Amino acid sequence: MQEKLDQLKRILGVVADLNGATALLGWDQQTYMPPGGVENRGYQIGTLSSLSHSKFVSDEVGSLLEDLKPYAETLDSDSDDACLVEVTDREYQRAVKVPSEYVEEFSRVTVLAHGAWEEARANNDFPHFQPHLEKIVDLRRQYADFFAPYDHVYDPLLDDFEPGMKTAAVQKIFSELRPKQVELLQAIAEKDQVDDSFLHLHYDGDVQWQFGEEAITKYGYDWKHGRQDKAAHPFTTNFGLGDVRITTRVDEDFLNTALFGTLHEAGHAIYEQGVAKRLDRTPLGEGASLAVHESQSRMFENLLGRSYDFWIHFYPRLQELFPTQLGNVDLDTFYKGINKVEPSLIRVEADEATYNLHIMLRLELEIALMEGDLKVADLPTAWNDRMNDYLGVVPPDDADGVLQDVHWSSGILGYFPTYSLGNLVANQLWEKINQDIPGLSKQIQAGNFSELLAWLREHVHQHGSKFKPQDLVKRVVGKGISPEPYLEYLNEKFGAIYKL
Amino acid sequence: MQEKLDQLKRILGVVADLNGATALLGWDQQTYMPPGGVENRGYQIGTLSSLSHSKFVSDEVGSLLEDLKPYAETLDSDSDDACLVEVTDREYQRAVKVPSEYVEEFSRVTVLAHGAWEEARANNDFPHFQPHLEKIVDLRRQYADFFAPYDHVYDPLLDDFEPGMKTAAVQKIFSELRPKQVELLQAIAEKDQVDDSFLHLHYDGDVQWQFGEEAITKYGYDWKHGRQDKAAHPFTTNFGLGDVRITTRVDEDFLNTALFGTLHEAGHAIYEQGVAKRLDRTPLGEGASLAVHESQSRMFENLLGRSYDFWIHFYPRLQELFPTQLGNVDLDTFYKGINKVEPSLIRVEADEATYNLHIMLRLELEIALMEGDLKVADLPTAWNDRMNDYLGVVPPDDADGVLQDVHWSSGILGYFPTYSLGNLVANQLWEKINQDIPGLSKQIQAGNFSELLAWLREHVHQHGSKFKPQDLVKRVVGKGISPEPYLEYLNEKFGAIYKL
Repeated sequence: MQEKLDQLKRILGVVADLNGATALLGWDQQTYMPPGGVENRGYQIGTLSSLSHSKFVSDEVGSLLEDLKPYAETLDSDSDDACLVEVTDREYQRAVKVPSEYVEEFSRVTVLAHGAWEEARANNDFPHFQPHLEKIVDLRRQYADFFAPYDHVYDPLLDDFEPGMKTAAVQKIFSELRPKQVELLQAIAEKDQVDDSFLHLHYDGDVQWQFGEEAITKYGYDWKHGRQDKAAHPFTTNFGLGDVRITTRVDEDFLNTALFGTLHEAGHAIYEQGVAKRLDRTPLGEGASLAVHESQSRMFENLLGRSYDFWIHFYPRLQELFPTQLGNVDLDTFYKGINKVEPSLIRVEADEATYNLHIMLRLELEIALMEGDLKVADLPTAWNDRMNDYLGVVPPDDADGVLQDVHWSSGILGYFPTYSLGNLVANQLWEKINQDIPGLSKQIQAGNFSELLAWLREHVHQHGSKFKPQDLVKRVVGKGISPEPYLEYLNEKFGAIYKL
Repeated sequence: MQEKLDQLKRILGVVADLNGATALLGWDQQTYMPPGGVENRGYQIGTLSSLSHSKFVSDEVGSLLEDLKPYAETLDSDSDDACLVEVTDREYQRAVKVPSEYVEEFSRVTVLAHGAWEEARANNDFPHFQPHLEKIVDLRRQYADFFAPYDHVYDPLLDDFEPGMKTAAVQKIFSELRPKQVELLQAIAEKDQVDDSFLHLHYDGDVQWQFGEEAITKYGYDWKHGRQDKAAHPFTTNFGLGDVRITTRVDEDFLNTALFGTLHEAGHAIYEQGVAKRLDRTPLGEGASLAVHESQSRMFENLLGRSYDFWIHFYPRLQELFPTQLGNVDLDTFYKGINKVEPSLIRVEADEATYNLHIMLRLELEIALMEGDLKVADLPTAWNDRMNDYLGVVPPDDADGVLQDVHWSSGILGYFPTYSLGNLVANQLWEKINQDIPGLSKQIQAGNFSELLAWLREHVHQHGSKFKPQDLVKRVVGKGISPEPYLEYLNEKFGAIYKL
């Protein structure tokens, strides 16, 4: 059996190498590639993805798994090998259900849709994108049917990003969250608004960059195993666990963009840097799910990066770097400014108190599209109605409304809820961390994140994707994903800032 | 037959995609990769090289070629398709001789060797690199044996870079060259030395970078299809004909390093950028050979970049950028300074009159290593002895001696002689170009390289590797590679500078 296991690992290693190379092709495309490279880059990514897919769904992998499954059941279920067989089998069973003609068509359709979306957004022309999105919704329904029977047509989509998560469970969580978040927003709306005008002064890009790097160095981001570059959209990627890179963008007229982008991506990257090296080049050598990933990025961005404790340590340094802009802004004012709550149009720029409402809106629309209750043609109206209901703002045009996100144009449905689930998981972990490390607040105030990092390494990072996300959360905090700690955090934090 | 040809091209396209991705993995490793990435990078390059190799040496390619060869003979022998079948078949017959396991091992070994070489050079620690180089020499001997019988054990290595060239032929050319080059050096040594002290002042790195980019922009380097980055050792690479990148290094205390490095690499890159786009993703979509490649880089570096005509145009701009350093240095003095002949330690910084002697030394050592007459452990001593014999200088340490070049650490043996052959080809082409464009000298003085570029595109670049290097040279200048124009050029140029 050891021989079969080794053979499986060899094949998975080749798949991982192809995926790592594909990730580098993508990283380069978004950082340094000259425009003339785009055509060949398309061929290269297509060729490598297709090779990786066909290596993985090969009969050889299938028969190795069949032989190894009974053996894996004899092992400690927490052991690497038992988890490897289980996770690989789960991914294999899903992958073989999807015919390669579908994969090809989906890829062709989304390439065209992405181009159409870019044009539609630039020209504020939803009808130009509409037929493409119709085709995508149709293809996503076909996709779901490969996994029939299911409890809900949205389940198979969700499962791609959040293994084991069900639509009903997400809906239940969100139905608890929504009224309370709306209530909080209404309470804030009745209070005086905080000042954040100082964040919109001119901030030199190189100095912003320097501060961000200093901050994430203190977080524990390991520069020997990563680097940061500029890209139009911030992202984290890796080419194996020894090389986990982040990107950010810099706006010289708004301090938040690069700063919180860097802190957020560092959270993702520190997670991947902390996965046990022995899991590298296997399907276990990555974060457990998107929600768990997002729990790390939101923790480093918000629970740390937008906390008072954090800025007790870092604010003097930031003032030193930007004396003209911040010399006369005291810590209290700065803290309130970076935590300003204000309903707005664009998800990626939303504050902590409104962010989830942007997600709920998207989830509901995606479910309605998949169920067939909502036609793509009616999507802009549905979008605007819900924006008004939840946030009290209505986009002046579709470019800042239904066309703002890239996801649908790439065929990605089922992804958005993981952002909100990540917020919840972050706070569940945070509650437990503060029980386990009573002196954490003082440590943060001293710019010392090492005990926190050690805790995360031990309880979350090292395991990679050995455990399903819900199981991992349960192992650590004693129950599955739930909204209470998050709501408590929001109410306490913004209650204090807005004197509710 | 068209169907078979299309099928062959499809497979060659996949091979090209894998090779392009592998090249990016290599570029990244030498420009931006953090140290922690090295282990996975080894796996990735190994996996992709091996996949590329096995796709190329597949039975399907073999049988397509068998079917297509008779058909290709019915076509115009200069046609793309006829050349494609011929060149692919030549490469295929060579490639099938090399087992995939060898290719994979070679990749893995050289990735590690490259890292070890970097450390060894930084710490002046040859023994740290020695076991890696021993492994590489051993692997190269195994490689040669795949091609047995051969006239000389070095022939198979040479043939990889210079199709059709034999060790004996190179030795013959070099034996003609060496006494005449040594004679020229001796004559120069008896004359007063020119002043080049102004080249060793402090030159801001960013401004050097800017001037280099301005110069190669005038040459015709296309930034939409390329970029320049910093690397420890300058090189050119491409990921398809639409993305041809160069690297250079900057020494703030020596103007020549970045400047002539950039001009040199631009010559390589402009060649690749000029290959007909219809040859992309096929074995024809690259330069004809390394010697022909080097003829372009040496032309742009030396025949242009170290010419009086070139600096009539560019010197005022350089003085403007470096007024303190060059404001009081007149053009004549500058021209002589950048053409100073002086035996020195570093090949890439060697002047035109001594350069080939550096190459001859390397060729002889490589042949001795391959023949088994020289042990890797004895290489530093052998290096220093020959430096003393040929150039009359001895490196104070191995970092500036045997460890200076990247090639061996990447497993590249058989490559060095192509540099010298390139010098010869450059001068053969240059003689012809000046016959065909009588006004060239004036054009260069005006910073106008467009007619030169058009000539090179027409006669050399566009053809890619459709023709064997010796055949290409013969097509253009009427005879094969020969040293006379080069020797004539050296004698004339340095005769004038040193008043011989």
